[in-house]
Amino acid sequence: MKTRAAVAVGAGKPLEVMEVDLEGPREGEVLVEVKATGICHTDEFTLSGADPEGIFPAILGHEGAGVVVDVGKGVTSLRKGDHVIPLYTPECRSCPSCLSRKTNLCTAIRSTQGQGLMPDGTSRFSVGGETIHHYMGCSTFSNFTVLPEIALARVNPDAPFDKICYIGCGVTTGIGAVINTARVEIGATAAVFGLGGIGLNVIQGLRLAGADMIIGVDLNNDKKEWGERFGMTHFVNPSEVEDVVAEIVNLTRRGADQIGGADYTFDCTGNVKVMRQALEASHRGWGKSVVIGVAGAGQEIATRPFQLVTGRSWMGTAFGGARGRTDVPRIVDWYMEGKIQIDPMITHTMPLDDINKGFDLMHRGESIRSVVVY
Amino acid sequence: MKTRAAVAVGAGKPLEVMEVDLEGPREGEVLVEVKATGICHTDEFTLSGADPEGIFPAILGHEGAGVVVDVGKGVTSLRKGDHVIPLYTPECRSCPSCLSRKTNLCTAIRSTQGQGLMPDGTSRFSVGGETIHHYMGCSTFSNFTVLPEIALARVNPDAPFDKICYIGCGVTTGIGAVINTARVEIGATAAVFGLGGIGLNVIQGLRLAGADMIIGVDLNNDKKEWGERFGMTHFVNPSEVEDVVAEIVNLTRRGADQIGGADYTFDCTGNVKVMRQALEASHRGWGKSVVIGVAGAGQEIATRPFQLVTGRSWMGTAFGGARGRTDVPRIVDWYMEGKIQIDPMITHTMPLDDINKGFDLMHRGESIRSVVVY
Repeated sequence: MKTRAAVAVGAGKPLEVMEVDLEGPREGEVLVEVKATGICHTDEFTLSGADPEGIFPAILGHEGAGVVVDVGKGVTSLRKGDHVIPLYTPECRSCPSCLSRKTNLCTAIRSTQGQGLMPDGTSRFSVGGETIHHYMGCSTFSNFTVLPEIALARVNPDAPFDKICYIGCGVTTGIGAVINTARVEIGATAAVFGLGGIGLNVIQGLRLAGADMIIGVDLNNDKKEWGERFGMTHFVNPSEVEDVVAEIVNLTRRGADQIGGADYTFDCTGNVKVMRQALEASHRGWGKSVVIGVAGAGQEIATRPFQLVTGRSWMGTAFGGARGRTDVPRIVDWYMEGKIQIDPMITHTMPLDDINKGFDLMHRGESIRSVVVY
Repeated sequence: MKTRAAVAVGAGKPLEVMEVDLEGPREGEVLVEVKATGICHTDEFTLSGADPEGIFPAILGHEGAGVVVDVGKGVTSLRKGDHVIPLYTPECRSCPSCLSRKTNLCTAIRSTQGQGLMPDGTSRFSVGGETIHHYMGCSTFSNFTVLPEIALARVNPDAPFDKICYIGCGVTTGIGAVINTARVEIGATAAVFGLGGIGLNVIQGLRLAGADMIIGVDLNNDKKEWGERFGMTHFVNPSEVEDVVAEIVNLTRRGADQIGGADYTFDCTGNVKVMRQALEASHRGWGKSVVIGVAGAGQEIATRPFQLVTGRSWMGTAFGGARGRTDVPRIVDWYMEGKIQIDPMITHTMPLDDINKGFDLMHRGESIRSVVVY
């Protein structure tokens, strides 16, 4: 079949919207009509050429929602008409990682996904006989796409595509980092570095978890109002204080505790210097600092080991530690029940033809999330 | 009163054994006759001048065992004749840290202890009117010493001083790192970097915890036999393999898991490059790496944040996460019941007059632990 798609033709070049050839689903695969897709920093990271594992030409996009149109042989858990969210972290439920009960990082199709291919080692996309690669196993910048069955979460069919697509990455990453990775408890103190699309979801995850103090950190004062909308209780602009670490330590001294430091800190910036600040702003003895942001190729984090020896833990999260097929439908339900908000974060929508404008809005910091509606 | 003690008169100088003046215990303090004391790398670290917080003159030593000789006003939990182990990490049971249930790093007397003083801001030691500082709140290189009540664990009076003194630091640090900090579960895989006095105790902690695979890593092949004596199942000499991380990843591939990496890794070297190797040799998705060794002043650990984002946690431990008054007596009991071994690790004993020989043995790597018996 033919489908319209925005193709990443090369590093640093604008996406080109064109008609591409799409093969139908093979065994264990599913054809999905994408109804909406978010534009995420990770897409930008690859498109810019900064991602050393980026492959071109490819169809980017990994934050989608849509409807099952056809299923390949052997597919048992999904059928035509099911509403689904594509999962760049699949959940096969039978690999050693899924069976470990200790990680969401399913390894069933890891190697082919990293090569921009379906699990059988081929691509379903082409133009004039030339292969176009898949991206993160999703390629939601195509109106129709093919995914493995294990990389699709079936969700509530009443949920609006143009909102729940965001659950395919940003919402789940932010909320999951709080509840699955850090496992924040009621009454905790927390600091969130970077109040973009991930950071705001960390904030609402912290509110959901019952945190007492939720400190947002951003260089842009406009983000104060944004953070407060989702549960932030304090705001720090690092450019307006002498030392952001000392500021957070001071803010979090409570009652008899004169040491200070946040029980939990989250880096949502991808800046390795900020990752260090986040660690060092966490509480002596028990602070946990979670790296969420993706750093540039080859960059390293550093600290004095004393920070760890005195009781801080440095950890990270991918897709918020969420097992996609199990957890994503629950998060969709939370949205439908009003437990979490998504609508205010979708600041811009546009048709596929204007997708490059979504990237421009991101570059200029004008959007929280832009969503392409097909 | 007068007591014999080995005094650290200056950085890099041998200890000088001399008679010093010791004031009796003030309120909340206890006078202890030290019966035996281990010589630990931390003493050496300070004596060498590498410790930026080292203070001279001081009476070093923090790994002791002895008998209560006198108690000051208000002391309720100890009395004359009690057998005790001094605690460089006290347990007051009433500060925010103790009450947090999340850390062993009691903060009740932290600031004065760091200044080489008793909690009231003075020292009990002097020579000819000149103050001699306490060290880590213990100063077990003195035959008699004064400690706060909260810094003494009362232990089984049948236990031999020349063995259980080692529980005051090395044994508890190693075993505690496994059971309190990493919380290793039955069937786990683990790698221990550095098979000195701490590493061997990590190994016996892993055996106690029921680990399936216990990999020891050391540049000295003589340590293979040492490790095996305490439960090590595999040995790697980094100088004999191309890449120690790859070697551990290969060794730990089990069954269907083709990813590899140890579930838990422990650095017992203090070398920041080894700390990185330990982290990176831990398993994708759930590996925990615990820093135990103390690095040189100003040194930093580093890694790519990708290591954390893909599910590894970097943590540290001080005194093995043990709450001294609660946990140390239990470890003494484990020794008395034969659950753990100490005797083979005490490779050398000597009188106080020969204490500098104990440091020499450590420098030359000839001892696991030297113990001064008074």
